[in-house]
Amino acid sequence: MSETVAADPLAPALSRIAATVESALDTLLPLPEGPERRLMEAMRYAALGGGKRLRAFLVMETAGLFAVSPTCAARVGAAVEMLHAYSLVHDDLPAMDDDDLRRGKPSCHKAFDEATAILAGDALQTRAFEVLAEPDTHSDPQARAELVLALAAASGPRGMVGGQMIDMLAEGQSLDGPAVTRLQALKTGRLIQFSAEAGAILGRAPARERHLLAAYGRDLGAAFQIADDILDTVGTEAEIGKTVGKDAASGKATMVAVLGIERARDHATMLAEQAAAHIEGFGPRAALLQALAGFVVGRRS
Amino acid sequence: MSETVAADPLAPALSRIAATVESALDTLLPLPEGPERRLMEAMRYAALGGGKRLRAFLVMETAGLFAVSPTCAARVGAAVEMLHAYSLVHDDLPAMDDDDLRRGKPSCHKAFDEATAILAGDALQTRAFEVLAEPDTHSDPQARAELVLALAAASGPRGMVGGQMIDMLAEGQSLDGPAVTRLQALKTGRLIQFSAEAGAILGRAPARERHLLAAYGRDLGAAFQIADDILDTVGTEAEIGKTVGKDAASGKATMVAVLGIERARDHATMLAEQAAAHIEGFGPRAALLQALAGFVVGRRS
Repeated sequence: MSETVAADPLAPALSRIAATVESALDTLLPLPEGPERRLMEAMRYAALGGGKRLRAFLVMETAGLFAVSPTCAARVGAAVEMLHAYSLVHDDLPAMDDDDLRRGKPSCHKAFDEATAILAGDALQTRAFEVLAEPDTHSDPQARAELVLALAAASGPRGMVGGQMIDMLAEGQSLDGPAVTRLQALKTGRLIQFSAEAGAILGRAPARERHLLAAYGRDLGAAFQIADDILDTVGTEAEIGKTVGKDAASGKATMVAVLGIERARDHATMLAEQAAAHIEGFGPRAALLQALAGFVVGRRS
Repeated sequence: MSETVAADPLAPALSRIAATVESALDTLLPLPEGPERRLMEAMRYAALGGGKRLRAFLVMETAGLFAVSPTCAARVGAAVEMLHAYSLVHDDLPAMDDDDLRRGKPSCHKAFDEATAILAGDALQTRAFEVLAEPDTHSDPQARAELVLALAAASGPRGMVGGQMIDMLAEGQSLDGPAVTRLQALKTGRLIQFSAEAGAILGRAPARERHLLAAYGRDLGAAFQIADDILDTVGTEAEIGKTVGKDAASGKATMVAVLGIERARDHATMLAEQAAAHIEGFGPRAALLQALAGFVVGRRS
């Protein structure tokens, strides 16, 4: 048994945390009676049952470095996944990326309708902030307010949504390397960075340790996004569960377009190594976070 | 001079607070450099320069009962107006109410485009929570976390967005009085109630006073919504600055449809009087809040 764990400790940890956050999401998104039930059905459709839960994994593993209660950390992990799910629901809308497929099933507006998908995305964002502000998330209101502040900064106009705006405007244009790097840092990087910092906020960690985890999250997020772009180019729909080849078809700005596949892969590997280096000081307690850096550039889905 | 003020103290107070919150919004939504500038332009287009600022007025006047710093109260007023503006931007989208006119000018997706309007609404919501969580809003993190929690509860699936879902599903159906009352309590009432409670949260007021203000906000919001529905039936587009007669045309569930205009007007007046009665105990300090209750049912725009 212990040999199996030693051989690949990351895969079972990812599965275990995915199950934990799935259960937290199920609890935090209860179906109401009444005609508004459809809204929560759409929210649950978008938030439950999918994805690697990379962001929740980061929250729970970094929280573990500071002996934070796993129940509290799972709430924050669930909140980040709600925020992420909202962004996917809105990105898939006809007026945005117009994508019919998400995590191997119809995207939210195909399974329900556009109006419901817009509202479900809106309400998933609201619920994410509500969960962070609830006393069950942390006994210290300072930590709760700080989580709200950090998630809002990561996902608002100077973060995720700002990046999505740049992405929409860049379609059909050719961006250079620094411009693509900045776009991706905002669009996906900031939320991944928040996830890695969240454990430090929950654990009231010293600023230095929070900064190291932020740096880890920043480089990990950049590596992850490049790996995602490579998968969009070389993966199959069955493997990754969403429409592939769309980036090139729509002239999306990616590092693959800028560097070509091989150099993009090298760049992602360099970023992943850099990410792992930031957290060396945490020692063996951070072994899974170290392993994750290798995983995100090696994954096939 | 003092006679003029005595004759109608509410109108200048509304104007003064509208100017204060306009200035706060201008400061809190700074235009960035870079390609994401368009996002903030759309956010400012939606949030600045319009509306009676009823919600901000409630925040600032109730905060005044507890000697809260007007600067702090204006930030919370601006946050509520951002949240309200986001809901209008998304409600006007083609997949929702499909409305081309808002506050006398093209709605956000007509002035920009659908993708930008979706993102601008998303980011206005995010920024509202961010502003509440920022230390400048209150020195006590407990108050900040409580504001986030209360705004999220008022605007999420058990509040505004839940109400909007019911509203979409009810189109073309005939709802009875209690169902319309509940729909409107969620869709517009909860956010108005939050605005009236916000002053008590900022002022760390005793629970009893917070509950009185919540009750005031609840009845005021119900009266306001009925008055709005009456205006949609009898007002002109020039007067109210948005498309009129749409509710009846699309079979929207309103109290006018349930009660007819005259009985709906009586019901709104009764609710306004009830709202004013809740806050009698605050005495002359609450005179403008009392006057507001009469104003919302008497207004013509």
